[in-house]
Amino acid sequence: MTSTEALAEIGLIGLGTMGGNLALNIAENGFQIAVFNRTAAKTEQFIAKAGDLSSKLVPSTKLEDFVASIKSPRAIILMVPAGDAVDAQIEALRPLLDAGDLIIDAGNANYHDTNRRAQEAAECGPRFMGIGVSGGEEGARFGPSIMGGGAKDAWDQVGHILESISAKHDDEPCAAFLGEAGAGHLVKTVHNGIEYADMQMIAEVYGVMRDGFGMSAGEIGDVFEKWNDGILQSYLIEISGKVAKTADPETGKPMLDIILDKAGQKGTGRWTAIEALMLGTPASAIEAAVAVRNMSARYEERQKGEAAFGPAPSKLDRNVLAVEALEAALIAGKIVCYAQGFGLILEAARQYDWDMPLPVIAKIWRNGCIIRSSMLNDMAEALEGDATRNLMLAPLFSEKLKETETHLRQVVAHAALHGLPVPALSAALSYFDIMRTERSTANMLQGQRDFFGAHGFERTDKDGSGFHGPWAMG
Amino acid sequence: MTSTEALAEIGLIGLGTMGGNLALNIAENGFQIAVFNRTAAKTEQFIAKAGDLSSKLVPSTKLEDFVASIKSPRAIILMVPAGDAVDAQIEALRPLLDAGDLIIDAGNANYHDTNRRAQEAAECGPRFMGIGVSGGEEGARFGPSIMGGGAKDAWDQVGHILESISAKHDDEPCAAFLGEAGAGHLVKTVHNGIEYADMQMIAEVYGVMRDGFGMSAGEIGDVFEKWNDGILQSYLIEISGKVAKTADPETGKPMLDIILDKAGQKGTGRWTAIEALMLGTPASAIEAAVAVRNMSARYEERQKGEAAFGPAPSKLDRNVLAVEALEAALIAGKIVCYAQGFGLILEAARQYDWDMPLPVIAKIWRNGCIIRSSMLNDMAEALEGDATRNLMLAPLFSEKLKETETHLRQVVAHAALHGLPVPALSAALSYFDIMRTERSTANMLQGQRDFFGAHGFERTDKDGSGFHGPWAMG
Repeated sequence: MTSTEALAEIGLIGLGTMGGNLALNIAENGFQIAVFNRTAAKTEQFIAKAGDLSSKLVPSTKLEDFVASIKSPRAIILMVPAGDAVDAQIEALRPLLDAGDLIIDAGNANYHDTNRRAQEAAECGPRFMGIGVSGGEEGARFGPSIMGGGAKDAWDQVGHILESISAKHDDEPCAAFLGEAGAGHLVKTVHNGIEYADMQMIAEVYGVMRDGFGMSAGEIGDVFEKWNDGILQSYLIEISGKVAKTADPETGKPMLDIILDKAGQKGTGRWTAIEALMLGTPASAIEAAVAVRNMSARYEERQKGEAAFGPAPSKLDRNVLAVEALEAALIAGKIVCYAQGFGLILEAARQYDWDMPLPVIAKIWRNGCIIRSSMLNDMAEALEGDATRNLMLAPLFSEKLKETETHLRQVVAHAALHGLPVPALSAALSYFDIMRTERSTANMLQGQRDFFGAHGFERTDKDGSGFHGPWAMG
Repeated sequence: MTSTEALAEIGLIGLGTMGGNLALNIAENGFQIAVFNRTAAKTEQFIAKAGDLSSKLVPSTKLEDFVASIKSPRAIILMVPAGDAVDAQIEALRPLLDAGDLIIDAGNANYHDTNRRAQEAAECGPRFMGIGVSGGEEGARFGPSIMGGGAKDAWDQVGHILESISAKHDDEPCAAFLGEAGAGHLVKTVHNGIEYADMQMIAEVYGVMRDGFGMSAGEIGDVFEKWNDGILQSYLIEISGKVAKTADPETGKPMLDIILDKAGQKGTGRWTAIEALMLGTPASAIEAAVAVRNMSARYEERQKGEAAFGPAPSKLDRNVLAVEALEAALIAGKIVCYAQGFGLILEAARQYDWDMPLPVIAKIWRNGCIIRSSMLNDMAEALEGDATRNLMLAPLFSEKLKETETHLRQVVAHAALHGLPVPALSAALSYFDIMRTERSTANMLQGQRDFFGAHGFERTDKDGSGFHGPWAMG
């Protein structure tokens, strides 16, 4: 490894499933890649299983050798568990790297950590980027969506590799630079928050079909399959159909009837909800989805609940509410959920003064990632028109909402009457109804707050703030 | 100030409205109290206005003199702005105090800060307590609810003073020790979160009456007044009635019609929602209330929304939905909201291993604080029976929910159909419907998660975890 040509164009540390697949993806796209894992045996196994691609892989058992095997200025992708492991790896690398080298955290970092690491990098070097990688194991191997954040010049150095390995939508790479510091990881977080809400709304209409209409898993699968040919076309609708139509090999029953209803979470959906609260921007459909996971985990409490209250009055006549209404409700709910997600990103961009291109974000979500859908293509276009506008006010989507809002109302109403919980769809409807109302009921809140805490209010009939009511205290 | 008798029994720093009122309250209850303010002029003004009570006040212009004017072991209440000012004040006091002295932060601290300060106090002294004080300016002056946290022996030192100045419910003081470290401030935070949800649900039924039934502010005030004689009796219902029945002196119009619907927030409701997310416990009604405040603040966006979508289809026939249904819905919503709040406290107690007496918390909320209500008396009793049980499962409250759930369903349903946003009531209903269901729809979420991320699931037909479906990938 003395000649420059023999050196790798990029390095990757952490050969777990995601990291390994990403390395193979990079190799397959023709880039020489140095690889390293804390446990050397894992590196050996990885190379052994890489087949033809092993010629593009440059393994090392020592970190020093790994660093030396990469072309300068070096770019090193970290795919180690989010949190302390990332900091430890940066600490270990720092003395071995030059100031112009680049560390790229491709894990699921909390973007506040990425902000801090970007700051530390600015102070102590080397350069630093945080990129969100979505698409799971399959995506990592064959083309993920890549949300880049950090220093623009760092992106310019490695962007061609990341674009090359990313998913494509009509030949456009689903990889882009989205803003400074933690911007990329923030976008990944919001992606996951939207994913939670999208999944939850699908689960809600599944519940109406299962418990309200008494449909079988297979029948429900047919419905999702049909919807996937329409405006709702998306990876999540597609796999919901597949999940619904899959039988358990062991019992022959539908898988859905075998899977216990205790949902897990890995944290990023929760981060979105927390971030919305910290930034002061409403993301109620996403929050509702996170809350449902926490409720679902309380299985024993729910058993006691059913024992105390008996089964819900859930049967619902399909002459009263049609399957088509569920599709329309899901369309409306989805628009609102994305309006909230993009609103969150917009607010973060404002508060951090990051230059975050919303249409580009919609574009790189069109393929590779879990929330990929045909609707994102329209969103990219709508945001191109005015990225600072609430998505539900973009003409294309306000028209769609006008067409579907009645159905959303009916689904929420009938579900409420029949004990079929639709918290994310309800939250979406409430958001829609508040955000389309000039005169909400928050005047009552302001009256109460002024009464008990002299917090002051603004008036409808003149400018200024800090007005008080003539309340008779006590 | 040489004889012990002349020394003050307690000290207080920070003579803003809350601090000044608390000092006057302590003085009026017969305790000699040393007072200090960073700006000496404020101390002078405070003493000048204290009238007869000034004989109980021991002012100092220097921090050293202030400390010297308090009996040893000293107890010093801080009522300075939450955040850095508290740390700065502790730093300034530390060299002047003995290890056995006690600093009591009575501000609206984030309980994570209180946890940290308790830890620092354990390492560097002096002793430290964080107490939540609720009831606003009036409460501080004439009897607040006091939620104590920190070292139990510290509470034993000053508890008699705090009990003496607190509000009373049937002669029982609304002040108690609620657990270690930040436990008191956590309870105060949850109090405020419940306050947000309680206020929001009132605002929601106000909206149904105003926009659905077309009732005037005065008529609505009559309804709240009537409800305040029933099971909903509470400070917030009482003041909502008063607010609704108050006319603007300037225009003669109802105050409610003059107050702009942009609600502010000071952060503690938001903290509750964030904490629920961090602890992984569902507090969806509280989260919904926080989100609404964020929506209300976006006034210009809402104006554009109304321009795009036109007014909501809000008229609602009182033959279809009666005012009585709103009362019942509010009762059900309130029970759920408290179930979520107490559930959050229980989860914090579990995760931090704090000994938090839930029935005592309900008891000290019965008077002095903003959420005081007659229902809290029943809650104290219900929690006494089994504080680890979801409040909605306590017999007294499960009966009330059975009586009222149909009305909650109807209110949510009709509000949805008529464009009347009821996000907190909807969230409450969804929570109820999920927590009373053994078989929820989270099996769909688990199926999706296993399909795209191989996250694994549990099965309904056997024990164990980490099962996977036979999904045909790709």
